Amino acid sequence: MRIEILNTGSELLLGNTLNTHGAWFGRELFKLGLRIERQTTVPDGEAIREALSDILSRADAVIVTGGLGPTSDDLTREITAEVLGVELMIDEAAMRSMEAFFALRNKPMAESNRKQALSLVGADVLPNPNGTAPGVYVPPRLNGRSNCAVFLLPGPPRELYPMYHAEVAPRLKALAGLENQNDALELKLTGVGESEVQDGIDAKLAQIPGLEVGYCAHIGEVDVRLIGGDDALSAGRKIVLDRFAPYLVSDDGSSIEKTVVRLLREQNMTLATAESCTGGLISNRITNVPGSSKVFTHGFITYSNEAKRDLLNVSWQDIEMHGAVSEIVARQMAEGALSVSSASISVSVTGIAGPDGGTPEKPVGTLWIGVARLGMETTAFRAFHPRNRKDFKLGASQTALDAVRKNLLGC
Amino acid sequence: MRIEILNTGSELLLGNTLNTHGAWFGRELFKLGLRIERQTTVPDGEAIREALSDILSRADAVIVTGGLGPTSDDLTREITAEVLGVELMIDEAAMRSMEAFFALRNKPMAESNRKQALSLVGADVLPNPNGTAPGVYVPPRLNGRSNCAVFLLPGPPRELYPMYHAEVAPRLKALAGLENQNDALELKLTGVGESEVQDGIDAKLAQIPGLEVGYCAHIGEVDVRLIGGDDALSAGRKIVLDRFAPYLVSDDGSSIEKTVVRLLREQNMTLATAESCTGGLISNRITNVPGSSKVFTHGFITYSNEAKRDLLNVSWQDIEMHGAVSEIVARQMAEGALSVSSASISVSVTGIAGPDGGTPEKPVGTLWIGVARLGMETTAFRAFHPRNRKDFKLGASQTALDAVRKNLLGC
Repeated sequence: MRIEILNTGSELLLGNTLNTHGAWFGRELFKLGLRIERQTTVPDGEAIREALSDILSRADAVIVTGGLGPTSDDLTREITAEVLGVELMIDEAAMRSMEAFFALRNKPMAESNRKQALSLVGADVLPNPNGTAPGVYVPPRLNGRSNCAVFLLPGPPRELYPMYHAEVAPRLKALAGLENQNDALELKLTGVGESEVQDGIDAKLAQIPGLEVGYCAHIGEVDVRLIGGDDALSAGRKIVLDRFAPYLVSDDGSSIEKTVVRLLREQNMTLATAESCTGGLISNRITNVPGSSKVFTHGFITYSNEAKRDLLNVSWQDIEMHGAVSEIVARQMAEGALSVSSASISVSVTGIAGPDGGTPEKPVGTLWIGVARLGMETTAFRAFHPRNRKDFKLGASQTALDAVRKNLLGC
Repeated sequence: MRIEILNTGSELLLGNTLNTHGAWFGRELFKLGLRIERQTTVPDGEAIREALSDILSRADAVIVTGGLGPTSDDLTREITAEVLGVELMIDEAAMRSMEAFFALRNKPMAESNRKQALSLVGADVLPNPNGTAPGVYVPPRLNGRSNCAVFLLPGPPRELYPMYHAEVAPRLKALAGLENQNDALELKLTGVGESEVQDGIDAKLAQIPGLEVGYCAHIGEVDVRLIGGDDALSAGRKIVLDRFAPYLVSDDGSSIEKTVVRLLREQNMTLATAESCTGGLISNRITNVPGSSKVFTHGFITYSNEAKRDLLNVSWQDIEMHGAVSEIVARQMAEGALSVSSASISVSVTGIAGPDGGTPEKPVGTLWIGVARLGMETTAFRAFHPRNRKDFKLGASQTALDAVRKNLLGC
């Protein structure tokens, strides 16, 4: 089944807005075992006509986003009707639902909004509980010009994503004959490289009938995505876990910070952070998780040596003798954070983010991580992320969060 | 001049990698006064053939990214040569430069890398100082099948961006007849809304001959982009500053954190942060700026009330009487950070990130910001960012950084 995405929006081509729809649809369709064959972006207005005509001659289904608003350059409905050779009509249910949307917000409905209730004769109107513009689905049989199913969807993610799940995915599955078939699993691994993961499991996974496999590498993380029926999924899951269980962050796509917050809550523990080179990124990630205030109390960003000494009781002599990026300083930072905060576990990071400050013995990218925990011996280890400043910070925060995860799991 | 972008890469369509090239090229071409008419993404391999043929029949210039690597599905050069009807040849200079690249890194050059030195007969080979794959430029006169200029560029941003600036932008300007014409200015404003900015200056800017104007709104920030000759630019700049000078973060696109670090360095001052609801995001942004270690020494993430009391000497009685999200706590946090750290200025944030914790008097999104400075009276103000958790944190960090900027500028 050949599926194309057509994104409309001048702001996407002027660079004012990053187009995240392509990647989002890619991931969602992959979960159905489907793929995007081509993604196209055109400006608002007339440009959609030529692009849509081209796509209708090639594709089995096209998802068009944007251009359903009330303004004069929102022409997606009108041009689609012309290109397909189908008449437009006002959909009364859509009109009533739009009137209710405005009434609920105590706002008058502008005349220009009326055109948002337009649909194509015989098409399905897709309800939009999160905005004014309903979507439209034109099944292939209605489409006079080709055999292509057409979905017209609103551009804003908060309207688009729920509409996709409620209205589009079930229709795509039906079109592709997938109704009862597939489910998806995303196994997130950390502390192991993409090629090591592939070498370790790819050949075995390939032997499971009906299983589709995808890998996705980020900094400090590899996602293994499995698609298939229940049996294929559980066989695939077993192969991944037999080989890489200690590296598994989550099997539902949850981030490592979410996993760490969950483990802390389950074990009734609290965390403190002592950050030098990551500069607050670890605590920022932790506090992105709703509910993190239950388990995260104190964060120390000790960017200067004086801060390490004054806030965390790191020995000035050890800093002078071993340098701030050293095993002993990482240990003392973690232990200082633990005792000052009264948390039950702490993690420290000290390293050289660059671009300056590297030496032959400690090049840019070098870091030490320490983990201290009540009633356990403090541990520390060296890591190396020779990347640009931001990616170094991201990699270092990933390694530090993983050290906490492993400690909490006792692995 | 009709310009199209063709991105190749299966990872872009599977959703493994976000396609940021479209937005990046949009901004860069806008600086030249040019626009992207269409952007297309196709998988690696053969799919480029059909997409490129379509584009050649429509466009005056096409920029193709990706598919220049050594593997078997990197076919951009080969397919482009076939589609254009031009022969391939090994470029000796490219081969020598690739050999030097590997020699410098003490790595053997694989046989498969040889094909990366392929170019089209008569085309310009575009040097790649940051990777192995050189780019290719096929001028319209060489192109037997259409009148379209073709650029083949590597996919990774660290190779692509420098090559665009050094090799592509000058050629596009020449093709568009723009050699001596335009320059661009990006004025970044904060603390003022997009519609207020537009209402304040748009009519006046429209009267300046030869000036193109673009607006781009982010959370807590509006960018005004001006394109034109020297006279138009300075007239435009004056209009923006006459109205919005106190809101100006930078006139070269620099982020607010970069501006704050620069001002601190210029004034020989140091900063400390005291963060509750932003959870480390402010210090994370500050430490993303190279050289920030000169001006940023101490960060306190006092997520719990106990941490506010123990690390920053906030009065327990005031927390109980006024709540942690209150003017007096924001003031005490800022003053505590200043005195504990010996920094010369400090900023504090305390607020309700949600999704839980809101009340009718203090709904989710409420925050208080404090600024303390040696020898000056501490100030505090209330702000409101009713958004999801991550956007709330971003907006709050933006407002806090802006409060520091304004204090340093005395405005």
